[in-house]
Amino acid sequence: MILSALVTSVGINTALCFLFLILYTILRNRPSNAELYLPRLVVEGNLREENAFGLRKCLSSFSWVKRAWEATEAELLESSGLDAVVFMRIFVFELRVFQFATIIGIFILLPFNYMGKQLDMDFTDLANKSLETFSISNVDDGSNRLWIHFTAVYIFTAVVCYLLYSEYDDIAALRISSFYSSKPQPKQFTVLVRSIPVTSGKSFSDSVGSFFSECYPSTYLSHSVIHRTDKLKRLINKADKVYKGLVHLKSEVSAQKISNGDGCFGIFGQKSEPVDQYDKDVEDMERNMSAEQLSITREAVPAAFVSFKSRFSAAIVSHLQQGVKPTDWQTEPAPDPQDVYWPFFSASFITRWMCNVIVVFACLIITILFLVPVFIAQGLTNLTQLETMLPFLSGILRMKIVTQVVTGYLPSLILEIFLVLVPPVMIVLSSMQGHVALSQIEKSACIKMLWFTIWNIFFANVLSGSALYRLGIILEPKKFAELLAVSVPGQASFFIAYVVTSGWTVIFCIELFRLKFLVFRILKGGLCCCSNEVEVISNPYHKLVPRILFFSLLGIIYFFLAPLILPFVMIFYGLGYIIYRNQLLNVYIPKYETGGKFWPVVHDATIVFLILMHVIAIGVFAVKKVHFASSLTIPLPILTLLFNSYCQKRFLPSFKGYPAECLINKDRLDHNDPSISSFYERLAAAYEDPAMEAVRNYQASETTPLLRDVSVV
Amino acid sequence: MILSALVTSVGINTALCFLFLILYTILRNRPSNAELYLPRLVVEGNLREENAFGLRKCLSSFSWVKRAWEATEAELLESSGLDAVVFMRIFVFELRVFQFATIIGIFILLPFNYMGKQLDMDFTDLANKSLETFSISNVDDGSNRLWIHFTAVYIFTAVVCYLLYSEYDDIAALRISSFYSSKPQPKQFTVLVRSIPVTSGKSFSDSVGSFFSECYPSTYLSHSVIHRTDKLKRLINKADKVYKGLVHLKSEVSAQKISNGDGCFGIFGQKSEPVDQYDKDVEDMERNMSAEQLSITREAVPAAFVSFKSRFSAAIVSHLQQGVKPTDWQTEPAPDPQDVYWPFFSASFITRWMCNVIVVFACLIITILFLVPVFIAQGLTNLTQLETMLPFLSGILRMKIVTQVVTGYLPSLILEIFLVLVPPVMIVLSSMQGHVALSQIEKSACIKMLWFTIWNIFFANVLSGSALYRLGIILEPKKFAELLAVSVPGQASFFIAYVVTSGWTVIFCIELFRLKFLVFRILKGGLCCCSNEVEVISNPYHKLVPRILFFSLLGIIYFFLAPLILPFVMIFYGLGYIIYRNQLLNVYIPKYETGGKFWPVVHDATIVFLILMHVIAIGVFAVKKVHFASSLTIPLPILTLLFNSYCQKRFLPSFKGYPAECLINKDRLDHNDPSISSFYERLAAAYEDPAMEAVRNYQASETTPLLRDVSVV
Repeated sequence: MILSALVTSVGINTALCFLFLILYTILRNRPSNAELYLPRLVVEGNLREENAFGLRKCLSSFSWVKRAWEATEAELLESSGLDAVVFMRIFVFELRVFQFATIIGIFILLPFNYMGKQLDMDFTDLANKSLETFSISNVDDGSNRLWIHFTAVYIFTAVVCYLLYSEYDDIAALRISSFYSSKPQPKQFTVLVRSIPVTSGKSFSDSVGSFFSECYPSTYLSHSVIHRTDKLKRLINKADKVYKGLVHLKSEVSAQKISNGDGCFGIFGQKSEPVDQYDKDVEDMERNMSAEQLSITREAVPAAFVSFKSRFSAAIVSHLQQGVKPTDWQTEPAPDPQDVYWPFFSASFITRWMCNVIVVFACLIITILFLVPVFIAQGLTNLTQLETMLPFLSGILRMKIVTQVVTGYLPSLILEIFLVLVPPVMIVLSSMQGHVALSQIEKSACIKMLWFTIWNIFFANVLSGSALYRLGIILEPKKFAELLAVSVPGQASFFIAYVVTSGWTVIFCIELFRLKFLVFRILKGGLCCCSNEVEVISNPYHKLVPRILFFSLLGIIYFFLAPLILPFVMIFYGLGYIIYRNQLLNVYIPKYETGGKFWPVVHDATIVFLILMHVIAIGVFAVKKVHFASSLTIPLPILTLLFNSYCQKRFLPSFKGYPAECLINKDRLDHNDPSISSFYERLAAAYEDPAMEAVRNYQASETTPLLRDVSVV
Repeated sequence: MILSALVTSVGINTALCFLFLILYTILRNRPSNAELYLPRLVVEGNLREENAFGLRKCLSSFSWVKRAWEATEAELLESSGLDAVVFMRIFVFELRVFQFATIIGIFILLPFNYMGKQLDMDFTDLANKSLETFSISNVDDGSNRLWIHFTAVYIFTAVVCYLLYSEYDDIAALRISSFYSSKPQPKQFTVLVRSIPVTSGKSFSDSVGSFFSECYPSTYLSHSVIHRTDKLKRLINKADKVYKGLVHLKSEVSAQKISNGDGCFGIFGQKSEPVDQYDKDVEDMERNMSAEQLSITREAVPAAFVSFKSRFSAAIVSHLQQGVKPTDWQTEPAPDPQDVYWPFFSASFITRWMCNVIVVFACLIITILFLVPVFIAQGLTNLTQLETMLPFLSGILRMKIVTQVVTGYLPSLILEIFLVLVPPVMIVLSSMQGHVALSQIEKSACIKMLWFTIWNIFFANVLSGSALYRLGIILEPKKFAELLAVSVPGQASFFIAYVVTSGWTVIFCIELFRLKFLVFRILKGGLCCCSNEVEVISNPYHKLVPRILFFSLLGIIYFFLAPLILPFVMIFYGLGYIIYRNQLLNVYIPKYETGGKFWPVVHDATIVFLILMHVIAIGVFAVKKVHFASSLTIPLPILTLLFNSYCQKRFLPSFKGYPAECLINKDRLDHNDPSISSFYERLAAAYEDPAMEAVRNYQASETTPLLRDVSVV
């Protein structure tokens, strides 16, 4: 890619960015779009209806940018929880990192690169200069200037580690303070007990009750054994469908009654047959449901949620081995009631094991299939190859603007579109692995998605097809470092285009306009139609975090190789900060909290990126024949790993549970709270399978309750 | 090695074994040797003096063999603790394994090997047959008979895994039952707290007291902060030396007084000068000691032993993170008071870190230095090479008996003598690593010693010198397997000689006669001199377990390669069972208990040995051109690892602590025990640094207590 192509691409994308922001501001202010763009405010009833028009209004309506920028952390914590704060902290952290990197990269490294003579380019025509002129490739082999890069790598690593440490420290403190300020939550008092041993003549419920009331007589509160409810759930779904059909039909019938008057009995008669049929279906369903409900008590799973009167007792039970046999009475902290993923409990051990094997294979297949769009994108960046394959396009491809769009825009667009399809697949795969909480599934999907992105976007692009299958090379560190050193710098321009196109416009266009929902709306009946459906998103982090981290990877890797990428990465984080802070305040309503557990993922990923940078640096210095610098870089990854192990000791335990001191203090505060006894009452019923609850609701009404409900309609 | 050489070697060694046993029986029954051979009985006052002589007595005195064989596990548990039982269980386990292996190996595999024609040997002369004729090397390449070996490997692995599982299960149950039957022990009620945070205006002792009485008001009992006592210890040692000198001198003076009558004042006057000098020294010492003792309270280490009124509370504190900062208030279960290794506490973090680095380098250097005796031993097995190097020996070396002794006896002897020197070094190295308990040091030394033996005796012998330094080959599994497959079978005869010589006679000679102490005695004044020193050994497992496991490695590896080794290994375990059961009942007095924590080491090592066998099997089948069998062996190590991970989940937690259920039950039983309050009193003073205790003893007596003590003498 030459400089002018980059300028064109940046120009197009900047223009698009502004266009999107203006378009968004206009769309956002139409009251009919409130369900789409301010769903949270609609749901929470905080929407102020404003119908004023005119240019002044339009300009002042840009105030959402200001509001998003200025919202304090405390506001965000209150409205969206700790996860949202941590999510925004990722942006703040990356902004800080790349502010520093940009200053060093653009003002120190880039001039030295440009002054090099290795690539032997023409000095006069700046516009036609290849971007490689600004990269480390242009520094002469064996030049002493490489020691500046060497120093930069050391200083950059130190700064990133310092920022990581202070951020980890802050977030750990935030976690404790938000625990202190939290109201009593069921998950704090509850433990999930699995592998309840079978005792002859005793139900699981009896076993749990006698075991815990024996061992913890003063603090044990209640328990609820989990049942195999998959059959019941199927019945309820079927019942719901029939119920909806019935409601629809009856309302149709009564509408006809009204429009035709009482006289047209003929038509009513015709319609009443399916109504009778539905009535019969509902009666059958209820019989089945009652039968299933009777049998369900026999289908208890050897797992239960056990609640205690104090947080400290729950922590003790979840940390200590309970029974003599370590595989019996396995305990772990319970997730929030709305965070529990129920289907897992019904699955047998073999099913789960099989599912895990399937997940591994599925991940492999997806990874291999994804190479197709990667190779298409790579093909587009290499136009001569494309011309040879499709000679009839050569005329069009020789037009300058087409070339620039095809090489600078299309590849990123293709990759991005394919990448959008992956997160839902990863969520499905993670949900098959036997996690008991939605938040665990989300975290697992997030990690899968991160490595998928790194492997399929970074490595698949950087390594040629042949090297990709020589996995053995990873076991030979020296060769691997040199392979990366040779191939990574060459892909700098591709990744700059990727940051500008995907990072600036594609991702934000998708996120800002909530493209998926917008398309649904248009398909349903036009942009302006008033839809009653409010599309809130609950916890979107598994989709966003990996993508955001991927840009961090690019920035870190290319920091000393091709500093030209840095300002673009920095602008990405600035834009992201505003836009996501806005789709958090107005769009997302968190369904569950992980308590900031995403930060360790970000921390670990950043450490891996740094080490990858060090490996490439070792390779680059060796290839550039400054072997002494190459050897002197070797301690850097070791020091980084030592730093990481210190951080893990220092902070990670705080993210796995709460310290005894805090638990005991918080419990003491509760003792003085008069509302705690009513909380205990709610706690006893908090962990009930939604399927059982639905059945109880049906039961609460009298005979043929479904029919009664319908007749009310 | 040819068959006749093996028969000679076995003959010599069997004769030696009998000779040793007879000699031991004679020596053991001499009352003057009781301190050497029955020190435990002497110390415990259970020795019955029997002075009868004659052949009948001599024969009946072989009854120690019978007694050792018949002693029940309960007796052993009572007299020597759980560690001793687990130690004997190792023998029982290995005996079972090699009983089975011997039957399969000798009656099924060996005939098939012998019927092979690969080595194309002369069939008529059995005595001159190379031992290789009986090994897998003699089976024809590509022969279907190799499928018998394949089946044997699978069945053997299954049997070993079954035995491992049942043994682990038994020992875990034994651990719980010995916990239930144990008297209250200080370690069960105590937690070691480290990294006590510095609070301004508060001593560490105040911090600990207020923190734990705040958090655990109902169960906190007491604490004792640890002090930096290294200076004080040096002073005490010096004082002890002076004190002994003074006692010796005064007793000499008084002896002279008696022999010379009161008249010889001249001589007394000459002697009294050094006495005065000593008196002055002692006074100085006491002044220093008092000064040091005053300053010691200022030199507290941020660590303390905190005791609780219940075992359950201690377990809670040691399992849960206590303070907000995970690096503060770090807790772990306390070791027994007599198991505590005090010097560590005085060392700073940097000292410990430096020590660890030194330990790593020291281990490397020892490993490299040890290659010298290994290569000498290897040189001796290769006589032609020795003849070329030392041509003047060729006459002697051509004598048959010399050849047989040199190749079959000397190499093992040399290795064994050098190997005896290593365990004390490993103990010293392990004690530098910052462990807080002697039992931890012993376990660490045991593991070091095990890998040292495996690497320096097995691998260094098996791989040629060049391959030894191509460590990279371990990263290429296929090549590594084939290298082992080519080189391991060739060393079978060397290791058979090693088992017979080292295993049967050298080790047992050293252990049975307590050779080290016997040599000391002889040097001091002849075999029969009556020495008053009773040489008990406390916990010898780090020396014994690795050696015993090494023979297990040889047996497992050569099970299908050269089954001829199996009966010799089995006899080793039989002999060992008798002899060690005897040096446990009569010689060892355990100083501390690890609670059977050696078993997981044995389990893990056996799993590693099995996997090594599988790797060799994969290589052998590939080299023997039965590629299908080679591929079909690949699942075996994977299955073994799965089995291991299941065992770790199922049993390992039981070896790290006790379950809540047991702790709570045991605590409740204590509540009814009237002696518990007196135990609490003792508990409060149990964890006191011996140095501080010594000082208090000095203090308890009046002015110049040392001098007073001496004047009493």
